[in-house]
Formats: sequence, structure tokens, C-alpha cells
Amino acid sequence: MQSDTPANSIPSFSFQVQAQAGRARAGVFHTPHGDIHTPVFAPVGTQATVKAITPAQLEEMGASIVLSNTYHLYLRPGDELVAEMGGLHKFMNWPHPILTDSGGYQVFSLSDSRKLDETGVTFKSHIDGSLHQISPEKAIAIQENLGADIIMAFDECAPPYEHDYNLRALRRTHAWAERCLQVKSRPDQALFGIVQGGVFPELREESARFIASLGFSGHAIGGLSVGETKAEMHHMLEVVDFVLPEDKPRYLMGVGSPEDLVNGVLRGIDIFDCVLPTRLARHNTAMTRTGRLNLMNASFSREAGPIDETCNCYTCRHFARGYLRHLIVAKEMLAATLLSLHNLHTLLQLAREMRQAIFEGRFDRFAAEFLAARNDT
Amino acid sequence: MQSDTPANSIPSFSFQVQAQAGRARAGVFHTPHGDIHTPVFAPVGTQATVKAITPAQLEEMGASIVLSNTYHLYLRPGDELVAEMGGLHKFMNWPHPILTDSGGYQVFSLSDSRKLDETGVTFKSHIDGSLHQISPEKAIAIQENLGADIIMAFDECAPPYEHDYNLRALRRTHAWAERCLQVKSRPDQALFGIVQGGVFPELREESARFIASLGFSGHAIGGLSVGETKAEMHHMLEVVDFVLPEDKPRYLMGVGSPEDLVNGVLRGIDIFDCVLPTRLARHNTAMTRTGRLNLMNASFSREAGPIDETCNCYTCRHFARGYLRHLIVAKEMLAATLLSLHNLHTLLQLAREMRQAIFEGRFDRFAAEFLAARNDT
Repeated sequence: MQSDTPANSIPSFSFQVQAQAGRARAGVFHTPHGDIHTPVFAPVGTQATVKAITPAQLEEMGASIVLSNTYHLYLRPGDELVAEMGGLHKFMNWPHPILTDSGGYQVFSLSDSRKLDETGVTFKSHIDGSLHQISPEKAIAIQENLGADIIMAFDECAPPYEHDYNLRALRRTHAWAERCLQVKSRPDQALFGIVQGGVFPELREESARFIASLGFSGHAIGGLSVGETKAEMHHMLEVVDFVLPEDKPRYLMGVGSPEDLVNGVLRGIDIFDCVLPTRLARHNTAMTRTGRLNLMNASFSREAGPIDETCNCYTCRHFARGYLRHLIVAKEMLAATLLSLHNLHTLLQLAREMRQAIFEGRFDRFAAEFLAARNDT
Repeated sequence: MQSDTPANSIPSFSFQVQAQAGRARAGVFHTPHGDIHTPVFAPVGTQATVKAITPAQLEEMGASIVLSNTYHLYLRPGDELVAEMGGLHKFMNWPHPILTDSGGYQVFSLSDSRKLDETGVTFKSHIDGSLHQISPEKAIAIQENLGADIIMAFDECAPPYEHDYNLRALRRTHAWAERCLQVKSRPDQALFGIVQGGVFPELREESARFIASLGFSGHAIGGLSVGETKAEMHHMLEVVDFVLPEDKPRYLMGVGSPEDLVNGVLRGIDIFDCVLPTRLARHNTAMTRTGRLNLMNASFSREAGPIDETCNCYTCRHFARGYLRHLIVAKEMLAATLLSLHNLHTLLQLAREMRQAIFEGRFDRFAAEFLAARNDT
């Protein structure tokens, strides 16, 4: 299904829903660097590298899209340097689809001394304290220099429970979304708009309606998994699910525990990203189908079995829990690599299994059984 | 050529010299976990992991043998735990040849409060200060628990310039060598004796004669690259080269710059190991055919070419110097991985090229040209 808003849609991108099961969808998003089969999880490569992992290892585990951060790359090494080096795909050696966020979330969460007005945001770098301004126009210019396949409109992410703040942020995000669409120029990039609105159903609905009306190539839901309850997150997804057009991909930003993926797909989400799998890995924690294991625990030191008997990742095929615990205790870098390989594989594999279950008309049962087996839900 | 000292030789190991060029040799050493083609460089996996590298990456770069450290593994996770987990090959997922050192060098260089007598060495762990004793018998018992293909006799490494100290250490090392041979019990392990003697030709010669007389499966030269000059190191190699039997492999312990490898092979050495390539990598330094590059240097930030245009490693095939510099500045773990892959590949490839040059009767020219091109020799 091609977009019905040709003025803003980009011919080299198209999205097809291939199967549905309730609100869950299996689809394919065509991009200049390859097809993305949804539901999909995007590993995060904040600084143009998925931490502790080579691109070859990402390919081996079947990753199809990687996210990188506009804010970080703008500050270091600089988007102009990346452009000069041939763009982000070449720079980080990921010749497959890449998504860059708008920098909005990081400006609000990482930098100091923000001054915010209609023009944009003025902030101090978290690296060296230098002063910078990012406007909607600047966010697009940076992302055009980076050259990702999917780029994001500049948005303001407000604290989830402050209604008036969210209302003001929403107005600004909407105005910025229009400006982003106006200045976007590269036909080989798909621009996604971001729905905001905190935990307020009427704001979420208004935002979804407005953003959907602008003719973006896809839609993201921002400002979730930032402190609200799971029930509130699910409610917000349900509100926007019925408003956003079905023929465009939907991306739930920054969300990525296994149960969040299943709950998101149940509510119409196609794309996820999160630092959780790699961050947990660097904190000695393995994600499994049913919960989490902290492998620093001395009880694992003599265990000859893998993290997860049912897992087919490189780590589980070759290494015992006792060995991983040894690497952690000995402060060896390989621990972070092997746990990152496992955790990323777990989410990529879960997305593949959900896709298969949707095709086979058994996704509701799959989701119910998966969620019932979790220790942490 | 089988050893002519059947009492101490092990049938499952044999070494053949396949080609010679002056004193340089190309050979093959058969072990229960595969053949080692010499000259060869052994990457070091101190704590049962080559730092920042997976076994799959080591296989891809053509590593055939890995060294691991008896002292470190005895202290953590413990050799009995490694045995219980199926031995070192299984524990670290390296089903190819492994060599463990005797622990002697680390006891003398890393631990505190050493008490040394004929029995062995009493020392405090560098990890937790706990008290331990390693005797020749204990060193063999630990190495039999670890289960490497090549194990080393327990030795004392003295400061290179102290004659009387070296003489005493030599007597002790020789007595310990005999005790190691007596207690060694596993037929699937080859025991190598270690020649000591500091920078003193007469001690080195005496040590080589004595150690060679005991019927080890191979011979190591220890106590070099510990502060003496390159000329002294070369002289010591020449002294022992003419004493050690030609039908046994010779291993120069802890030596591993590119020029040291070439100079060692010129003087009859077959096996090398060193932490240098992986340690330099973690300090942002690439080894090249002609010298070293510190990629932290700002001059590399916009360089689109690889570390070395002539290198075929994963890093040089896929990543620009500018990207590597970005990873270093951004403190990304991938920098250590990619530089380790390159540095290890450089030494493994150099060893392969030397072997080829020996077979083709052009090793003298190869060595002369290689050494003449070095910036640091």
C-alpha cells in the first residue's frame, strides 16, 4: 500500500502490511539500503557503533536496522565529518537500513542549560560544555549529513504527568513537525513524525491526528517508557493505534524489554529500539525468555550450561554460564561482547517469532503464553 | 623427526622441520588439538580470553594456537573449576592448540612478598592478597587441570644483568625442570623446558645443554625481552640456537614485536607469544608493517583510508582511520576490538609470510627488506 499523501511521501520507500492478527501486523518496509521486515527490533548504536559489537556480528544475528543518535554524532565526531567520510552507512560499515533520531530526546535528557523557544533549543554539550542550538531545520540538516534511511522530526519530550507542559510541548512539536517536512530535501530518506502527549489520552489522540495529517512516511510514538506505568503506556498505544493510518509503519521509540515488545506488537507497533539489551549486558545481566539473570552471582560459577538452553545465539552455542561469570569477575571486555550478542539476539529472535506467529494466525496465543511465562510481568 | 629420547617424549606430539633457510626453519608441530605450522605467533589469552576478541574472530584471522596464563587461572577462577568445566579448551571455546606458561614469570613479576626456596615460591595473590605456594609439582598439577596441549616447566626468571642471581636461578630452574618431568602424567600434553641465563652467554649455553639433555618435547627461551638490549637478546638466541636440538620446536617466550619475530626466526625460533598486539590496541595503537600509529592523534580524524592499505584484516577491509579515531575519542569498546583484530592479524600474517619465504628459499632477503623498512629498528 503506497501512501495516499503523494505530496510528502517518498517513492523509494513503501510499506506493506503482509498479515494481521488482531491489532498486530507483519509488514515490510522498503528502504534504499534494504527491506525491513516488521515487527522489528533496532539495536542502538548511539555513537555510530553498537557498543562492544562489530557489524559482522550484527549481521550474523540477523539485525536489519540499526539506530544511531543525532545529538551524539552532531557533537562528536560532527555530522559534517561523517558526511565527508561518505555518510553514516560507510562510516560505521553498516550498509543496511539506519534510523537516526532527531536529537530532541537527548537534548532534553543529557545536556545542561537548555533555553527553549519557538526557534529551537539552545544547550550546552555534555562533552565539553560548548554552546549549541538545534532547531527543526538544523535537526534535518544534521540528519541529511548523516544520511540515515529513516530520519525523525525534531520534537520536545515533556515529563509524562505534567498536563500543561505536555500541551505546550505538543503545540511546539506539531509546529516543528511541519517545519521539518518543509525543509527535508533528500529523496533517499524517509521522514517520520513523532506523536507526543504524555499520559493524557486526549493529547495523544490530538497529536496522532495532527501528525498523521501531515503525510509523513511513518509515525513514531515518543515520550513513553520515561516514568509512566506500563498500564498507562499500553493505554497511550491503544489511543494512537486507532488514529494512525494503517498503511504507514509505527515506531515506538526507546522501548525494548521483551514484554514491552510483545505488548507493543499487540497494540499495532512495527518498530522498536532500545539501549536496554546492550546496557544490561555491560551490567552483567542476561535477558532471557522469562526474565533476567545477573551472571555476577556466585551461584553461576560452576554452571556448565548456557544462559538459555533454547537460545541459538553465538554465546549460548559456545559458552557456559560459569565461563561468562569468570569473564565478569575478571573484568574482561569479552563479557560485555558475549552478553550483548545474547541480549540483542534475544530481542531480534523474539521479533522474528512474533512475525511468524502473526503470519500463522496464532499471535494472540503466542503473546499470552509469552507474557504469562515472564517472571517480571 | 620423532624425539630420540623416548623416555620423556610423548607419542601424540611430533615436530617436523619442513624447510630451512640459514638458521630459519618452517615446520609443523602435531598436537591432539591440531597442527601448528611454524613459524607461528600465539595470541595471549591471559585469563582464558584474548582480550576484546571472540574465538570466532581468532579463527577467522587464522590463529592456530593461543597462550593462557597458569598463574592467573590458578588464582581465578581456579584450575580445579576449569577442570570441572571440561578443561580450558572447552571453557574458553578454543578447540585448537593451547599453551599454558608455568606461572613462574607472573609469580616473579606480579605477586607480592615472594619467599623462594628449593621447594618452590610462596607469594601473595595480586587479586586479594591471599597466600599461595607454587612448586614445580604444583605448577604441573595446575597445568594438568587446565589441560593445554603444551605446558611449561616451572622456572625462575632472574633480572637479566645480575650474574650470581642468574647462576643461582639457573641451578634452581634446572632442578625444577627435572622434577616437572618426573611428575608430569598426561600423555596428551607436551612439556617444554625453559632455558634461562640472563644476558650471560656461558650461562645460556650451560642452560641450553642441560635442558636439552632432559628430553623435553620442546624448548623455550625465557628471561628475554625483560630489559636487555636487542643486541643482547639476539646474541643469547644465537648461543642457544646452536645447542638446542633441531628436531624439537623452539619457543621464545613473551616476545612479539614484528621486528622481534623476524629477528627470532632468523635465529632459529619457531614459536612466539606476546601481549603487545592486544595491549597496544587497548592503548589506541596500531602495529603496521613499518612501525606504529597512535590513532588518538587528531591528524587521523578525517582520514578515509584504512590503517594499512596492504592489510587484509577485518578492520582494514571495513573501517577508515577516521572512524577508528572517533571510536577512541568516544571511548567505545569497539576501538579495542578492531585494533586488536588488526594487530593480531599483522603478526599472524607476518609469521605466515615468513613461513612462505622459508619454503621459497628467499627468507634472508625477506628479512633484510622487512627490517630495513621498519621505522623503529
